[in-house]
Amino acid sequence: MNYYGEAVARMIEGFSRLPGIGAKSAQRISFYLLNMPEEKVFELADTIKEARGAIKYCGVCQNLTDNDPCHICGDDGRDASIIMVVEDPRAMAAYEKTREFKGYYHILHGAISPLHGIGPNEIRVKELLSRLSDNNLTEVVIATNPNIEGEATAMYLSRLIKPLDIKVTRIAHGVPVGGDLEYIDEVTLARAFDGRREM
Amino acid sequence: MNYYGEAVARMIEGFSRLPGIGAKSAQRISFYLLNMPEEKVFELADTIKEARGAIKYCGVCQNLTDNDPCHICGDDGRDASIIMVVEDPRAMAAYEKTREFKGYYHILHGAISPLHGIGPNEIRVKELLSRLSDNNLTEVVIATNPNIEGEATAMYLSRLIKPLDIKVTRIAHGVPVGGDLEYIDEVTLARAFDGRREM
Repeated sequence: MNYYGEAVARMIEGFSRLPGIGAKSAQRISFYLLNMPEEKVFELADTIKEARGAIKYCGVCQNLTDNDPCHICGDDGRDASIIMVVEDPRAMAAYEKTREFKGYYHILHGAISPLHGIGPNEIRVKELLSRLSDNNLTEVVIATNPNIEGEATAMYLSRLIKPLDIKVTRIAHGVPVGGDLEYIDEVTLARAFDGRREM
Repeated sequence: MNYYGEAVARMIEGFSRLPGIGAKSAQRISFYLLNMPEEKVFELADTIKEARGAIKYCGVCQNLTDNDPCHICGDDGRDASIIMVVEDPRAMAAYEKTREFKGYYHILHGAISPLHGIGPNEIRVKELLSRLSDNNLTEVVIATNPNIEGEATAMYLSRLIKPLDIKVTRIAHGVPVGGDLEYIDEVTLARAFDGRREM
């Protein structure tokens, strides 16, 4: 199987282990890199090492960051009365892009999934609880993913936090904006009906 | 747009410039790497640098290799009477996998495409011509891709090589094995009819 020499074969294999990259893509990417100027390739490789070397978790929200606290937790101008709980940094970034949410975040790094052996201790729940003693905090919005694990996590957190006299909310489920009703699954349609609001 | 710090943002950007990787995939790959053990990530980055650093063109067939001549051109057991001309190393690897072809290869690194400013001088045609003086050589099979550029290249090479009294052949066009006639385009069907052989 080694038609290109040892080093290239190892590079192709390395890429093919990354998520969403199969054998063909790994080959295509590798040849692209082999045809790129050497200094550009070295730059990319060094950037990867630098990013992996510099990365740590924010001591407050648990986001991946090169500064602790991260630039969101370090920003005094945000609304300290509300924390949005998400599963991963990408969900946080997705909400940041909306520019609608002005509070702080908490990143769980996963969701509760008994099937995969992931309980509350495997995700950053303890770190969330330690933030709830802040007197400014009045609401926790749970924005875990709309699937079984995300819903279970939302349920678990709501039971844990409600007794502390903090409002717990869940982001709305419903028909996505721009979607076509015809192509939307029944569960979502039912949820959209349940969640209807007066106009 | 920088939600994860400078180094991570540069890594994501670096990945998103690779072929077939969009912004979302680049993000997904980057977070996968950030969650991988540091030494594994460093290993991948070093492999990329090593591969790019070691790679050169085989002086005979122009394949990318870490040895010159490459292990195919250096193999005396192959059939020196036939050279297969392909556009890129991946096409060579695809034919090698068939284990049907026992001759040598020549890699053009592209195809003639006047629209993109690629003429015979931009691909490895000169290097092919210099190989034709070998007295053992009796046939050149042209296996460029079955598209406009590949056909133009095949035509050009055939006109160049035929006067040298070397047989020039082209790989067959036709219905792919395992394909369903219903889903095959008309041009291919017409070619398959033209190329019919007695059973």
